[in-house]
Amino acid sequence: MSDHEKIKKVSIIISKGTLEGVYPGLIMANGARMAGIEVNVFFTFFGLDAITKKKMNNLKVDTVGNPALGFPTLIAALPGMSSFVTKKMKQQMEELDIPPVPEFIEMISDAGGKIYACLATVEMFKLKKEDFCDQLDGILTVGEFYELSAGGQIIFT
Amino acid sequence: MSDHEKIKKVSIIISKGTLEGVYPGLIMANGARMAGIEVNVFFTFFGLDAITKKKMNNLKVDTVGNPALGFPTLIAALPGMSSFVTKKMKQQMEELDIPPVPEFIEMISDAGGKIYACLATVEMFKLKKEDFCDQLDGILTVGEFYELSAGGQIIFT
Amino acid sequence: MSDHEKIKKVSIIISKGTLEGVYPGLIMANGARMAGIEVNVFFTFFGLDAITKKKMNNLKVDTVGNPALGFPTLIAALPGMSSFVTKKMKQQMEELDIPPVPEFIEMISDAGGKIYACLATVEMFKLKKEDFCDQLDGILTVGEFYELSAGGQIIFT
Repeated sequence: MSDHEKIKKVSIIISKGTLEGVYPGLIMANGARMAGIEVNVFFTFFGLDAITKKKMNNLKVDTVGNPALGFPTLIAALPGMSSFVTKKMKQQMEELDIPPVPEFIEMISDAGGKIYACLATVEMFKLKKEDFCDQLDGILTVGEFYELSAGGQIIFT
Repeated sequence: MSDHEKIKKVSIIISKGTLEGVYPGLIMANGARMAGIEVNVFFTFFGLDAITKKKMNNLKVDTVGNPALGFPTLIAALPGMSSFVTKKMKQQMEELDIPPVPEFIEMISDAGGKIYACLATVEMFKLKKEDFCDQLDGILTVGEFYELSAGGQIIFT
Repeated sequence: MSDHEKIKKVSIIISKGTLEGVYPGLIMANGARMAGIEVNVFFTFFGLDAITKKKMNNLKVDTVGNPALGFPTLIAALPGMSSFVTKKMKQQMEELDIPPVPEFIEMISDAGGKIYACLATVEMFKLKKEDFCDQLDGILTVGEFYELSAGGQIIFT
């Protein structure tokens, strides 16, 4: 389709902690590995939830701040509504053979993708190395992230 | 301004279904075409709403999840509030000669920009080819998207 | 870590007006300057709040549209809740020596980073040059932004 040189590396930043905020980055990371592209995934801010043992199993869909779901706000704000939509999205993912977040991260890591956390926000949320899932390859400064990303595409999600 | 080689291609991903989530990508796509830059626009997740016939005319502003609008949350959550702000933003766009979303997509397509949907999320939302607007150029896997994007900039919005 | 050519320039777009929407772009801009990378920061849509004198001191955290914070929605929507979480995040930033937004922008500008506003959205919100902080280096069209960004990475936040 193009006579340009193929993409060799992508460095994907995941900065949100909602289910619909985490999946796009993981899908792009997984798609890149499947296409033989080198992958770094860098978690920052609320995105850190996706790689902390305590929270990675409990990411939720944002129902209130998303008029695209078509709920009137006062309905979207009802207790249980976010859990309901979250459950539905998880089922849809399962039907598509897209794994839950923890398994998806394991899969990307097993395929050679690297998993990093952002030092500044790790400190901000007072997290420790042992709070993270086993796939974590390191905690990096922004400068180190730029070094790692040289020669590739940076994708902030 | 720079002795670097000019940007030749941008591949813009639109992942949100709110009006303020869709416009930045479209404005960047249109600006690129006007500057003679090759353009691919790739719609994924709730961003798909912007190219489905049923929803593309009814995108809304997220009033609740946006303290930048300056509404107290309980006001922002009132029924009709999102419609009110949406109407106001649409008027502001019109004054600036920025077209409504369907016409904007038509304009970008007519100017040679390519419009793609993301296969994984098309399947997740159980959409069919006939659900999309006529400008759709194809439904792509993530791997195909990376191939198309080689030699350019990937911009995730 | 890599034999690729180092990143020489980053052009960071800040499009959101929440505190957690503005900080990632500023942290990446600052980290880039500290690593000797050329930096352009381009503010658009609600991101403009971060460089307007009236609003840059009062950015808030979005508590309602962020289930990652762990509040039930109806609690998150209580008057004062966004202010409370905002105050807490500001304290955490301070402990980390991350300055408040206005000082952070001044710091990036003093270190040689360039601060730009997006013409289309400046007009949409009917802003004037005098509404912006002193660090503003210019108001650019999207085409001019692409020109400036040539030879570097575009990062949309």
